[in-house]
Amino acid sequence: MNTFGEIYRLTSFGESHGPGVGGVIDGVPAGIRIDTAEIQRELDRRRPGQSHIVTARNEADRVRFLSGIMDGVTTGTSIGFIVENTNQHSSDYKEMADTYRPSHADYTYSMKYGLRDYRGGGRSSARETISRVVAGALARQALASLGVEIFAYTSRVGDIEVNADYTCFTPDMAERNVVRCPDPETADRMIRLIEDVKKDGDTIGGVVTCVVKGVPAGLGDPVFGKLHARLAGAMMGINAAKGFDYGMGFAGVGRRGSDMIDAFASDGSGRIHTLANHSGGIQGGISNGEDIYFRVAFKPVATLLREVPTVKSDGSATVLKARGRHDPCVLPRAVPIVEAMTAMTIFDAYLINRTSRL
Amino acid sequence: MNTFGEIYRLTSFGESHGPGVGGVIDGVPAGIRIDTAEIQRELDRRRPGQSHIVTARNEADRVRFLSGIMDGVTTGTSIGFIVENTNQHSSDYKEMADTYRPSHADYTYSMKYGLRDYRGGGRSSARETISRVVAGALARQALASLGVEIFAYTSRVGDIEVNADYTCFTPDMAERNVVRCPDPETADRMIRLIEDVKKDGDTIGGVVTCVVKGVPAGLGDPVFGKLHARLAGAMMGINAAKGFDYGMGFAGVGRRGSDMIDAFASDGSGRIHTLANHSGGIQGGISNGEDIYFRVAFKPVATLLREVPTVKSDGSATVLKARGRHDPCVLPRAVPIVEAMTAMTIFDAYLINRTSRL
Amino acid sequence: MNTFGEIYRLTSFGESHGPGVGGVIDGVPAGIRIDTAEIQRELDRRRPGQSHIVTARNEADRVRFLSGIMDGVTTGTSIGFIVENTNQHSSDYKEMADTYRPSHADYTYSMKYGLRDYRGGGRSSARETISRVVAGALARQALASLGVEIFAYTSRVGDIEVNADYTCFTPDMAERNVVRCPDPETADRMIRLIEDVKKDGDTIGGVVTCVVKGVPAGLGDPVFGKLHARLAGAMMGINAAKGFDYGMGFAGVGRRGSDMIDAFASDGSGRIHTLANHSGGIQGGISNGEDIYFRVAFKPVATLLREVPTVKSDGSATVLKARGRHDPCVLPRAVPIVEAMTAMTIFDAYLINRTSRL
Amino acid sequence: MNTFGEIYRLTSFGESHGPGVGGVIDGVPAGIRIDTAEIQRELDRRRPGQSHIVTARNEADRVRFLSGIMDGVTTGTSIGFIVENTNQHSSDYKEMADTYRPSHADYTYSMKYGLRDYRGGGRSSARETISRVVAGALARQALASLGVEIFAYTSRVGDIEVNADYTCFTPDMAERNVVRCPDPETADRMIRLIEDVKKDGDTIGGVVTCVVKGVPAGLGDPVFGKLHARLAGAMMGINAAKGFDYGMGFAGVGRRGSDMIDAFASDGSGRIHTLANHSGGIQGGISNGEDIYFRVAFKPVATLLREVPTVKSDGSATVLKARGRHDPCVLPRAVPIVEAMTAMTIFDAYLINRTSRL
Repeated sequence: MNTFGEIYRLTSFGESHGPGVGGVIDGVPAGIRIDTAEIQRELDRRRPGQSHIVTARNEADRVRFLSGIMDGVTTGTSIGFIVENTNQHSSDYKEMADTYRPSHADYTYSMKYGLRDYRGGGRSSARETISRVVAGALARQALASLGVEIFAYTSRVGDIEVNADYTCFTPDMAERNVVRCPDPETADRMIRLIEDVKKDGDTIGGVVTCVVKGVPAGLGDPVFGKLHARLAGAMMGINAAKGFDYGMGFAGVGRRGSDMIDAFASDGSGRIHTLANHSGGIQGGISNGEDIYFRVAFKPVATLLREVPTVKSDGSATVLKARGRHDPCVLPRAVPIVEAMTAMTIFDAYLINRTSRL
Repeated sequence: MNTFGEIYRLTSFGESHGPGVGGVIDGVPAGIRIDTAEIQRELDRRRPGQSHIVTARNEADRVRFLSGIMDGVTTGTSIGFIVENTNQHSSDYKEMADTYRPSHADYTYSMKYGLRDYRGGGRSSARETISRVVAGALARQALASLGVEIFAYTSRVGDIEVNADYTCFTPDMAERNVVRCPDPETADRMIRLIEDVKKDGDTIGGVVTCVVKGVPAGLGDPVFGKLHARLAGAMMGINAAKGFDYGMGFAGVGRRGSDMIDAFASDGSGRIHTLANHSGGIQGGISNGEDIYFRVAFKPVATLLREVPTVKSDGSATVLKARGRHDPCVLPRAVPIVEAMTAMTIFDAYLINRTSRL
Repeated sequence: MNTFGEIYRLTSFGESHGPGVGGVIDGVPAGIRIDTAEIQRELDRRRPGQSHIVTARNEADRVRFLSGIMDGVTTGTSIGFIVENTNQHSSDYKEMADTYRPSHADYTYSMKYGLRDYRGGGRSSARETISRVVAGALARQALASLGVEIFAYTSRVGDIEVNADYTCFTPDMAERNVVRCPDPETADRMIRLIEDVKKDGDTIGGVVTCVVKGVPAGLGDPVFGKLHARLAGAMMGINAAKGFDYGMGFAGVGRRGSDMIDAFASDGSGRIHTLANHSGGIQGGISNGEDIYFRVAFKPVATLLREVPTVKSDGSATVLKARGRHDPCVLPRAVPIVEAMTAMTIFDAYLINRTSRL
Repeated sequence: MNTFGEIYRLTSFGESHGPGVGGVIDGVPAGIRIDTAEIQRELDRRRPGQSHIVTARNEADRVRFLSGIMDGVTTGTSIGFIVENTNQHSSDYKEMADTYRPSHADYTYSMKYGLRDYRGGGRSSARETISRVVAGALARQALASLGVEIFAYTSRVGDIEVNADYTCFTPDMAERNVVRCPDPETADRMIRLIEDVKKDGDTIGGVVTCVVKGVPAGLGDPVFGKLHARLAGAMMGINAAKGFDYGMGFAGVGRRGSDMIDAFASDGSGRIHTLANHSGGIQGGISNGEDIYFRVAFKPVATLLREVPTVKSDGSATVLKARGRHDPCVLPRAVPIVEAMTAMTIFDAYLINRTSRL
């Protein structure tokens, strides 16, 4: 299943060591003005080699659009796009053809398909997320024209956590440092932790917090397509994601209901809003017009730059040492991917909702 | 969107105060032997009035199958079913027609649809989960014939948490007490907490842990249909769910990658397995044959048996006191629903996987 | 696959000799006023026993709605419904359990599923179309509020054909006789032919013509979801349908392009329309605002009231004589089913089109 | 909607005058050996400029695969591909930006999207079918390994029709002449007719007959996914298609049921087959193992090489003369497209059927 979304749909393709990655975006309404330079900027936020705390691979990741946009405006037909692979070192991976890297997808792919593309992880490579960023950036531009704003940031790396909640930050603050944490002092500590981990050839996990402002009330479906269920499915589909919660989430289970009520109030003009937002902007699966916020947990990835004992496909023991260039911590590069998946999910829900009343 | 699943699909219907709830299960392979008494037993685990710590409503919830089963065996055609509503007190809800209960779906439904069925929450009622339990129980019987076993339990209520991990428990242990916690001493403390909360007219949240054993390697899709993403979407679609994680989940983000490796080993016969299971039985989105385990956070629900200030649809202030019969803690009744959604998700992934090789 | 439609979706269930047939209609916009008596009238147009030229089975076919409608208005949630089976003679079919009726679905169901519900054809029974008529009648009411009108009629039985084209007829004319042909003289000849065929224990085929007026320009998708491709798929899914064409259809292949141009003209107000309508109201897969018209061919059904040689499942020869009550010609009862499938298809395309522009 | 299929899915993109056309094929089982040269040969059968009776445009149409195939074998992941556009004369179309060609998609696209890509028909161009041929050729190779063979041929052009039925022909016979009619004498007459029509700057329609041999019994679904309904939807989605029938089709409506029975017989080994095949290899929507055969009607296309009166978008009158290079008759090039859509449909049904029994 390489398609995401119901109305606004991305169908993606591509392995890390083939000719390129890309996809087709379908269900794009006509008449959306697209700034392709802005889409490229989103790709640049995702790309390897952007700082000393991410993988040193240097890939330009230039997107080329093949259809569906004329004179800078969407035409309503499907949008094909491709990002050529330019920095393939297949030889880095030859020895892995017959060896299962522990805590990777090697074994499971082989069990599922009877074979696998062993070069750089094949389809399980992080390069796959390029297509998400392109489709997300496009959705984001459509949402911006509707007044919806999305921003995510690194809220935790290892045990170092931002103490303030999201309302203290503005979108630009996270972009001021390489770890994408909006609190400068915490950012410094996170960066030092990642540097230490990297020196050890090790990896570390963390949490991304994401906020969506300006979502109109009414998005999401009551039963199986609850807005937060769509978001959860979207986030957990990102490589290395291990957990999701929204609103008060796991932290709310220890509290009493009376302590979590989001009381309604109406302003002078009769507009109804809530005085608190424990719910995270979604009630009964449907947006209520307040800020949506949620967290995504990312594991420390399993590619260590040190010797690791493992097995070959015949069960015999061997030792593996990754030689490629890898991320000691995926969090900085996960931020734009979380934003992209969020944009696709919210825009899809917006389009679905167009049919909720005659 | 009232359909769940890709191949094995439940399409459900029904409000709490209409004639009944039910659904159609499509994509059921032919030739599965069905024990309808066992399905009824699953419904009984979900039903109100089963103990003093859940809502006192007394509903029999008898399922009637309408098609697709002949002589106790599935025929391959769609299975319609209905559970009639027998205990409707619409008068309990009349005053709510024009009032938005805080932290409920009243306001969001009204914003989405321009109107809502105010009787007992309409479609957002917990009665909607009856259909899930029926379809889940059927999937579970199919899975049992394939050697897959599913069990869930209450692992936390408020701040009271089970300390041991799932490997210490067997499926029957959770069913020995009304809170469905497999550790008897912890269960007692949970029950006392719920009793206290109930006395206060308040509510409390908690966590359900779910385990799936015997899943063959190869289920789940590499990119957007990752097995854990499917599970996350399924779980977050349950009423009151606020968070999901699997394997080490949120607890793993503070650890180093070298500390989380699930090393491979092969037994005498050459079968490959992992020595640890931080991954939670899924790698790269695909099952690896080890136990799958995950957690679902449930909030303290917002229906308090005390006066709550709120607003009417015109924005004017009012005070509301719920008079119906409600759960002080949804956890005990959430356990069979988590199991049902898990069964549907895993069986669907099993069927999808039938097309992964020619 | 028991689901029809993308946004407006019917998922149906039911065998002829189980407890009942029915379905769930999902994707219904909120706020549509529903006249359930009118839906019942559509069912009465479909039901057996309505005249001497259709099967003598006498089934009341009362529809009971279970959800999704409150105070006569759709609420936006799924609409469950059931029609109980009341006139089951399972004993009519016992001897068929092990025998394949020629040109029926008995053999193919057995090959597909390894077993089959042999009672009255099971899921392949014409009773299955009840659900279509219910969902179609509801879509029709929604379309009527948008100014769309649908009518179909029997345009051919055996070799007896209506000579005039659809523009000569109004919707009520077809309902004035039991064969549903709007031309009275041709209708009489058709009825006499069916009487003769019935006397012989034989059957006869024919053609239904269907017309849709008032469809706004813009419905249908350019590539795979062409409006006429959706209609073709819908019509060919009706039991006994063997062919479909629209506009000039098969009759147009012998003509030259220059003879088939639908020239544009604009009226005083600048509104553009076509002077001819060889295209049948659809160009490039998208409605152009002109009348849509198409034809559906129905075969003479294979249930003969005479002895027919056939085989048992072990390959041994046997002789079969149908004893049930059967239609000598399905055309009169096919008319409301063609209309129902048309209504669902057009309304679905209308809802899909809501997302074609931002 | 630019996606075709349920399990084996093509999502296509591309306009005639953009950088290229292509698509993503998803749901491809792993382990299928692919002969890419053979896929190129299918594209060559579709391409313009292949003979004097089709459009003189000369496009090489080289397909480049981007993912999903390693060492000539499918890996189970999505297959991206692109065919670059090399022969674009956008200047041919400038004057059409504001003018609606009659009986084309210009007006309907503008009504649907509020704008359109006027260059060469944009997405409604016949170049869109390139993606179908690629995905169809791949499906065909998978089917060939399962013993399924597909061939189509031109059975009618204008009023010139092949008299013999399909059983008289072998697949190679149609490829021996440029009109793809397997009867040499009829082919000569068809070619002369097309030459005459071309001289007049006119166009002519016709019929393609398609045959599928070796389909196992059991493919197709009983209700909405009937195999012939899937085929009808697939065929009617091809540009210029106006009609579809299968088995006896429209020709059978004039006959009696007793004259159309496909009696069963069993051979020495107990294998059951039918003595006649009026049903066209499908009964109750499910294949019965006999040959599947059907017809597709194509209209004379509307692009005339002569002056045609029409209107501009403001309703004012104008005169248009197509200057591009166009097909006087689409039939010769429609043959490989019909085969491609058939291959995709049958292979999809094959994969769907893998889940019909546990």
